[in-house]
Amino acid sequence: MGIEYSLPESLTSYHNRVRVELKKIIDSCPSVLCDMLRYHMGWQDEDGYSCNRESGKFVRSTLCLLSCQAVGGDTSHVMPAAAAIELIHNFSLIHDDIEDASDERHHRPTVWKLWGQSQAINAGDAMFALAYVALLKLKERGIIDEKIVGSTRMLNLACLELCDGQYLDVEYENRLDITIEDYLDMAAKKTAALFAVSTALGAYLSSADGKLVDFLHMFGKELGVAYQIYDDILGIWGKREIIGKSVSDIPQRKKTLPVIYGLQKSEGNERKRLKKFYTQESIEGEDNTEVKEILDHLGARNYAENLSQQYYHKALIHLEATGLDSSRLAPLKKTTNFLLERNF
Amino acid sequence: MGIEYSLPESLTSYHNRVRVELKKIIDSCPSVLCDMLRYHMGWQDEDGYSCNRESGKFVRSTLCLLSCQAVGGDTSHVMPAAAAIELIHNFSLIHDDIEDASDERHHRPTVWKLWGQSQAINAGDAMFALAYVALLKLKERGIIDEKIVGSTRMLNLACLELCDGQYLDVEYENRLDITIEDYLDMAAKKTAALFAVSTALGAYLSSADGKLVDFLHMFGKELGVAYQIYDDILGIWGKREIIGKSVSDIPQRKKTLPVIYGLQKSEGNERKRLKKFYTQESIEGEDNTEVKEILDHLGARNYAENLSQQYYHKALIHLEATGLDSSRLAPLKKTTNFLLERNF
Repeated sequence: MGIEYSLPESLTSYHNRVRVELKKIIDSCPSVLCDMLRYHMGWQDEDGYSCNRESGKFVRSTLCLLSCQAVGGDTSHVMPAAAAIELIHNFSLIHDDIEDASDERHHRPTVWKLWGQSQAINAGDAMFALAYVALLKLKERGIIDEKIVGSTRMLNLACLELCDGQYLDVEYENRLDITIEDYLDMAAKKTAALFAVSTALGAYLSSADGKLVDFLHMFGKELGVAYQIYDDILGIWGKREIIGKSVSDIPQRKKTLPVIYGLQKSEGNERKRLKKFYTQESIEGEDNTEVKEILDHLGARNYAENLSQQYYHKALIHLEATGLDSSRLAPLKKTTNFLLERNF
Repeated sequence: MGIEYSLPESLTSYHNRVRVELKKIIDSCPSVLCDMLRYHMGWQDEDGYSCNRESGKFVRSTLCLLSCQAVGGDTSHVMPAAAAIELIHNFSLIHDDIEDASDERHHRPTVWKLWGQSQAINAGDAMFALAYVALLKLKERGIIDEKIVGSTRMLNLACLELCDGQYLDVEYENRLDITIEDYLDMAAKKTAALFAVSTALGAYLSSADGKLVDFLHMFGKELGVAYQIYDDILGIWGKREIIGKSVSDIPQRKKTLPVIYGLQKSEGNERKRLKKFYTQESIEGEDNTEVKEILDHLGARNYAENLSQQYYHKALIHLEATGLDSSRLAPLKKTTNFLLERNF
């Protein structure tokens, strides 16, 4: 495996089953471009030979299945939805790597780096279409048409939010006036929308209780924002070997939460320096170190950690509001805790 | 309007209704990136002001509605599917313009040219998601869930073929050994798959007769190939002012049917010259003229016209096989004839 860290059982328990489902869907696709998709998933090398370089943590699909389990559902019925969510996430990663001009993902060249931008656009598009193919497999698991239509609607809306979030992310690149509110709006769309639909679908497909679905939707939403903020922290203060990205967020001048906070709170010379760095083409070497120092000095890391914790607690409140037995909720809680203490 | 040619009534009759449906769907989307979509559709200029530069001919959505009409269905029930098809077509155009590095579409800068590649990728993705939003509106028109699920499946499969066709199109760019068979496979996927699902959905949503759906599917498939071949002919011998593209297919070295035929059939010096041109970066000025002369001399235009006609006749055979009254089929036939004699 590509990553060497220990995941809690609640997070790994569904890995194999989700992978089997995903492989079935991708393999059923007659398209020649599926080689790119298998490569992206880490199941194949660039020459088409099998390999074992999977790096995806299947976080979203696992949350979907844990949510199903929490409301007392049968996860095998929900598996196609879990796969669909993972396909949406990965379609978005393939396109995101083009947009960010990222050369590497988890120590491997990105799809566009190997096949070119055009084919990577096509690969992402195909993965997007496959997500809907996956979702329709709910029918084979005995899910009624009404619920399939409802699931498609929920997934669609999340996809639209995701696209909007991606749009905002790019749009913010060349602006220095982003507020914390702007950031939270972007994070809610770019990350939390898919988290929210993951936990909501797990409940929706297993329960007729609309309130339960709503609470789990809100849980996923808050967790998604907490996760994104935590991701931003790792993007600056995480270890390169563990994150597996070729560069941290600073050289790419990403407007992540600590930076937005820094740009807002800094004064005098620090403000001038930060503004200068964030209008450069890229931030390398000593400049990178100086940005980190300024952010540390301003308490940007603490601020982000506190905000992430706030969202984490809001998420837990929604989880408690479901009224479900704590034994039922334990795996979801364990996974949530792990996600917000992870070092990857 | 951007284009000045006269469309037959059968092709224009549904324009307004499809536009209304499309506008409703795009406007219902809260996303800020919808400005790019409205721009692409020709309803807005780049600054967000309303304009009247629509150039889409709504061919596919019209075929869907004419197919519905032919089997005696109520087109107002099928309108969301017609809109979904148009959204898929346009998502594909937005991404295709990035892949082909096309600066202009119908005398206007392309989306990526104005907003950059990243935002154009996001705009295409959002349009893709909106297609499914549109399709789900079938429910409001009284279409039962089973048919909505079936429609989603049909549209999905067409989208996968479309992505595959786009992949092949790019893949062929740097190859000189493409056969006519390769080309037809690509055309079937890139163009005919969406034509086929258009005519099939029109029937599927209005009739319980599976055979009728199959015949209309096959009709659309053959028509799609005929249309693509005809498009290739226009791409070389059509008039620039009418097509509205900034360049013809020759400068871009597109491996369209006449060129593939030319590369296969040419001998001696002509073969050497063609091969040389099609390994250049681009084909400009006198080289462009020489390519045309060689293709003319080889009878590539005649060959393509004949092949297009063959597919047209195969399409008509499937249409007749439906056994529907000729009065019912007349609008479909009229549109088909027009599409294969058009000069745009």
